[in-house]
Amino acid sequence: MRILIAGGDGFCGWPTALYFSQRGHDVAIVDNMIRRTWDEELGSNSLTPIAPLFQRVDAWKEHTGNDIKVYVGDLTHYEFVETFMRDFQPEAFVHYAEQRSAPYSMIDRQHAVMTQVNNVVGTLNVLYAIKDIVPDCHLIKLGTMGEYGTPNIDIEEGYLKIQHNGREDVLPYPKQPFSFYHLSKVHDSHNIMFTCKSWGLRATDLNQGVVYGLWTDETSGDERLYNRVDYDGVFGTALNRFCIQAAIGYDLTVYGKGGQTRGFLDIRDTLQCVELAALHPADRGEFRVFNQFTEQFSVLGLAERVQQVAKRELGLDVNIAHVENPRVEKEEHFYHAVHTKLMDLGLEPHLLSDGMIVDLIETAKRYEDRINVPLIMPKATWR
Amino acid sequence: MRILIAGGDGFCGWPTALYFSQRGHDVAIVDNMIRRTWDEELGSNSLTPIAPLFQRVDAWKEHTGNDIKVYVGDLTHYEFVETFMRDFQPEAFVHYAEQRSAPYSMIDRQHAVMTQVNNVVGTLNVLYAIKDIVPDCHLIKLGTMGEYGTPNIDIEEGYLKIQHNGREDVLPYPKQPFSFYHLSKVHDSHNIMFTCKSWGLRATDLNQGVVYGLWTDETSGDERLYNRVDYDGVFGTALNRFCIQAAIGYDLTVYGKGGQTRGFLDIRDTLQCVELAALHPADRGEFRVFNQFTEQFSVLGLAERVQQVAKRELGLDVNIAHVENPRVEKEEHFYHAVHTKLMDLGLEPHLLSDGMIVDLIETAKRYEDRINVPLIMPKATWR
Repeated sequence: MRILIAGGDGFCGWPTALYFSQRGHDVAIVDNMIRRTWDEELGSNSLTPIAPLFQRVDAWKEHTGNDIKVYVGDLTHYEFVETFMRDFQPEAFVHYAEQRSAPYSMIDRQHAVMTQVNNVVGTLNVLYAIKDIVPDCHLIKLGTMGEYGTPNIDIEEGYLKIQHNGREDVLPYPKQPFSFYHLSKVHDSHNIMFTCKSWGLRATDLNQGVVYGLWTDETSGDERLYNRVDYDGVFGTALNRFCIQAAIGYDLTVYGKGGQTRGFLDIRDTLQCVELAALHPADRGEFRVFNQFTEQFSVLGLAERVQQVAKRELGLDVNIAHVENPRVEKEEHFYHAVHTKLMDLGLEPHLLSDGMIVDLIETAKRYEDRINVPLIMPKATWR
Repeated sequence: MRILIAGGDGFCGWPTALYFSQRGHDVAIVDNMIRRTWDEELGSNSLTPIAPLFQRVDAWKEHTGNDIKVYVGDLTHYEFVETFMRDFQPEAFVHYAEQRSAPYSMIDRQHAVMTQVNNVVGTLNVLYAIKDIVPDCHLIKLGTMGEYGTPNIDIEEGYLKIQHNGREDVLPYPKQPFSFYHLSKVHDSHNIMFTCKSWGLRATDLNQGVVYGLWTDETSGDERLYNRVDYDGVFGTALNRFCIQAAIGYDLTVYGKGGQTRGFLDIRDTLQCVELAALHPADRGEFRVFNQFTEQFSVLGLAERVQQVAKRELGLDVNIAHVENPRVEKEEHFYHAVHTKLMDLGLEPHLLSDGMIVDLIETAKRYEDRINVPLIMPKATWR
């Protein structure tokens, strides 16, 4: 399959590209390298050292003999999008190429506007290019579980059967996103749904939970193939961040009470899910939504788990600190989200293990000298 | 009340500004004049002659002694937004300043992107400026009934009580918008809802139906105060457009079967509704949604009504032509939308009368020589 990975230099995109290449697909990466620029902006860095994209791709060729084509440019520039779409003619378009941090989108007005314009316009351009150049191409779009917010009813996969005043319909699931970033994903979802209906495009929206882990079979062998992993208050996410904090003896920073419950998954399952979507494409005109996570945890529950494993397996004493919540969100709430569609397609989950936590802590210990401690605390506020 | 009308040079904005000024409020207009530029772009024009904004405002001062302050600039330029917000310190911000045509948004990629960026970024800037400069200001935002699409259940006002698997919540009403324009309004609604929740802003979203008529007490006396009215395939809307077509003996162009049913209202009721919202502001932190229309009609039903009135009252023979539908939409469907909240606040509707239809046809006859006939047919296609 000719599969294009937009955002292929990033945390999910890079291992996805290698995973498909390893399995014999013809892979191309599109990236504007802006994630590396945001590190510069924030004075931040990946815990793990990461090679420049061209070195990464060369190392992959060295190990496997497989070529990965690289297109460097920005999805908001339509001439660029047209160029690589005509050249590569993808059968599947995996779209990770968005600003993906809620705190980054909440830094200030410019970051909010940048996030929404970048994400919405990039996706609009992809939709137009698919329509005009490769109308049969399957768009596999990364959404987020955060689009749903925390309703007091079960979260279904994209749609909800509603009975009201004696009539019935299946309607898009109501959205209550948490940040300007999550809002941008909701905007995308509505735009994509419309183009499936009006233009007959085929699309799968993967509403992904919080991803943890970093190693995959393809990225762990050679330092030039290493994946990035974030520990800072802007791009770092729960669990990965907690393990890194545990490694350096920094209190595990739980925002508020920590009863916030979310869906989580291992990065190896991200790759599996995207593969399952690609191998079982949506029909023409279909806008399909899968909830992409394997387990639900509360933030406090995760911190306690990391604390226990660190003590038991590694003899590390770490504290849990309830810091003031920079976000506006419910800290105790009902949460139950359905996630059966990817299981039905054959997903075999890597559930969270103590071994994974130990591995993350040990990786952090190995690169301890790369950690810029003041970056760990949250900076952007929702208020 | 210090009330700011963004988009105050437009079809709804100009009569709204005069209406509030007439009633003793302190009114300012913000506009970037782009609606006039779009006329240039499309080779189109208002049926009625319209004076430049500064002449309009001078004429109003001549008649009433009332000043209307004018700020010319673009809401997507934040420095401009900051400047007029600091200077005028509005207590209510009526936001009409968006690209408001579905067909315009569907012309091509550039028009789709422009519509979404213009509308979403303009509104984001307004939200940030309210938060930072006039946090108590009441945002009165024009949405559209088209945000809901045509679900097979009753359309409620913004929210829906949902029972699901034995639990219950009140959630935002699911949205299935018709075009990139309607999508931009859905994006706005989500953004505004979030800022009410996170920042404690107060906002009323007026999901307006299709507006007909053009004369109001304040605009009809002096030609320099005339309101614009559109008859072309891009900005002209059902009913107004049918009356103008009837006046020149042009077939009434119904798209497809014409069973498309929508909410409609008289422009004088637009002004009443905005006034009711302004006089009864939302609470801090509240995101309130009102469905702003007074009657439902099918497009074919309206065409037949115009045909009958034209014959009976004016002796005009006009045909109805079912032209190929440029849009992707259901042409026969269930439609029942609730619209009680504005009635509860005291709205006294001007229901559609034969006299209104006669008046519109006679106005069109008076300005017949201004009509550029080839502009009537639709150009943009949804497919």
